[in-house]
Amino acid sequence: MKKHNYSAGPCILPQEVFEKSAQAILNFNDSGLSLLEISHRSKDFVAVMEEARALVLELLDLKGKGYQAIFLGGGASLEFLMIPYNMMKVNGKAAYLDTGTWASAAIKEAKFLGETVVVASSKDQNYNNIPKGYTIPADADYFHCTSNNTIFGTQMKEFPETDLPIVCDMSSDIFSRKLDFSKFDIIYAGAQKNMGPAGATLIVIKEEILGKTGREIPSMLDYAKHIKAESMYNTPPVFSVYASLLTLKWLKNLGGIEAIEKINDAKAALLYTEIDRNPLFRGTAAVEDRSNMNVTFLLNDEAHTAKFDELWKAAGISGLPGHRSVGGYRASMYNALPLESVQVLVDVMKALETEIK
Amino acid sequence: MKKHNYSAGPCILPQEVFEKSAQAILNFNDSGLSLLEISHRSKDFVAVMEEARALVLELLDLKGKGYQAIFLGGGASLEFLMIPYNMMKVNGKAAYLDTGTWASAAIKEAKFLGETVVVASSKDQNYNNIPKGYTIPADADYFHCTSNNTIFGTQMKEFPETDLPIVCDMSSDIFSRKLDFSKFDIIYAGAQKNMGPAGATLIVIKEEILGKTGREIPSMLDYAKHIKAESMYNTPPVFSVYASLLTLKWLKNLGGIEAIEKINDAKAALLYTEIDRNPLFRGTAAVEDRSNMNVTFLLNDEAHTAKFDELWKAAGISGLPGHRSVGGYRASMYNALPLESVQVLVDVMKALETEIK
Repeated sequence: MKKHNYSAGPCILPQEVFEKSAQAILNFNDSGLSLLEISHRSKDFVAVMEEARALVLELLDLKGKGYQAIFLGGGASLEFLMIPYNMMKVNGKAAYLDTGTWASAAIKEAKFLGETVVVASSKDQNYNNIPKGYTIPADADYFHCTSNNTIFGTQMKEFPETDLPIVCDMSSDIFSRKLDFSKFDIIYAGAQKNMGPAGATLIVIKEEILGKTGREIPSMLDYAKHIKAESMYNTPPVFSVYASLLTLKWLKNLGGIEAIEKINDAKAALLYTEIDRNPLFRGTAAVEDRSNMNVTFLLNDEAHTAKFDELWKAAGISGLPGHRSVGGYRASMYNALPLESVQVLVDVMKALETEIK
Repeated sequence: MKKHNYSAGPCILPQEVFEKSAQAILNFNDSGLSLLEISHRSKDFVAVMEEARALVLELLDLKGKGYQAIFLGGGASLEFLMIPYNMMKVNGKAAYLDTGTWASAAIKEAKFLGETVVVASSKDQNYNNIPKGYTIPADADYFHCTSNNTIFGTQMKEFPETDLPIVCDMSSDIFSRKLDFSKFDIIYAGAQKNMGPAGATLIVIKEEILGKTGREIPSMLDYAKHIKAESMYNTPPVFSVYASLLTLKWLKNLGGIEAIEKINDAKAALLYTEIDRNPLFRGTAAVEDRSNMNVTFLLNDEAHTAKFDELWKAAGISGLPGHRSVGGYRASMYNALPLESVQVLVDVMKALETEIK
């Protein structure tokens, strides 16, 4: 049966990425060797890394604008520590917006290094909205935010105007919508939503903002060292970078971010319209902050849970249960999830309504 | 043509690992989903992680001895920083043995956190031997060494007797030879030699040694946090862990470390015997410290370089050039390289001798 994979991450990737990366494991570039057994410094893999780094900047429209893209291991959680190490001055100050679990984890690591001001938080509302109208201290070294909150289903639609460097964790919505990416000084993202398999982290850095903290930085946490080494300071996560390149190429062939944004908008419109129309369901996030990537919703009457679960499982849907912090359901609709899969879910929601009437 | 892959890492892995991991990317456990698109918290992947962690301890004969095995991202280079963060007391002292490039990189990160004593170094001899007869300061918090030096082709055959905790970087020879692993308090290793594809790092920790430094540790650098979260504090490098499990199972089926050590000894004997016999070649490492994993050797007369290179390439050999720090050749003979491949290299060395006579 056709599967409809709503997993929150690691998550669905384009089918051609699975096919081509499996093939590369058996025989990479017709070399007679597996992608897994070649040196990361071989000509063939250096070409992969360079193409991936360039394609990131091209897709984000950052080519020739002073940015560098690097792929590291360790996950976005390691960036929570690397960001203040690279951006917070000795005796300096950082400003963070608290919009959910991951924002909160980033704040914790920043506090490890120095004064960290939380400019606003929606924690008291179980993070069901993005705070607005906050003030960012003008003497902070940088402002950090999380563009999309997977667990709570909220997404920043606007970003503050500020003279400070802006650092953004875009782990769960990078490459999904058009933004003026040149307004950001550092963008980082774990691969495992819209980019590739778990194990790689993308960091996009406006190079001129580095080296201003007066802080000594451990080698592996130092962005400048990784940039200088062309993202090969140590052995990179070869397979994850390769599969990310395949995904980025798929996106480019599709028409880039502009094209995927239209598809993502259509998917979100389809599902939110049904949530708002169907009397059995309600969304959990403030309407103006609803995420196009992670749609969180509840049954109005939990007595229908067993029936609904039976229906969506029978339709080939997987990965729909919500995070324990919110309960209910979460439909993660990353780039590679087709509109057709959303239609299947909407049909199931309508079928539940018919059954119950 | 059959390839003989002598790459220093990432390197050859068992053929069945390539086949089974490629299959899992197309359809994991007959789920109809790719290994790359499932949640790391799914039942199927949690089972992979738990089996891999248990199998590491079983193969190292550390089961039931108070050890924990975890898989992290970031590479062994990140452990260079995590080790002192977790092991060096505030105002404490670390003792390091300097046997090569990676040992030296580990020392640099330790110095970032506090006083770091280099008990001995063979740097002045271009690391062609393992220093012996050194004294470890009794008041150090731990002793750190590198069991095998990929670049220089040396390997520690004995480890010092000390009451201090011993931390060992076994990136390039773990699972290759029998040792009393219970003499070590922390063993760590990048996956990409004898364990699996680049992107995962294995850390094996005697749990009781943690929590004694009085030092505050950033979350992602804290071994105790990763152990408590059962190696899922953040999204792990799913694919690399799975392929590592496949390699560990292959090793177990072969008869474990005892069985592979015999094969590795036979491979090393075959090649070193030829290096010592053949008047055209000489080894670069001190005989008593020769590595069974990375065999470094030179042509006595560089005028034969073009001919030798032509011959080994024609025989299907790849990855033989030495690291720029040593020059010449390096035959990396990790667990998955068959004895047959070593015979092919030895035959080429003999053929060169015949041609030149």
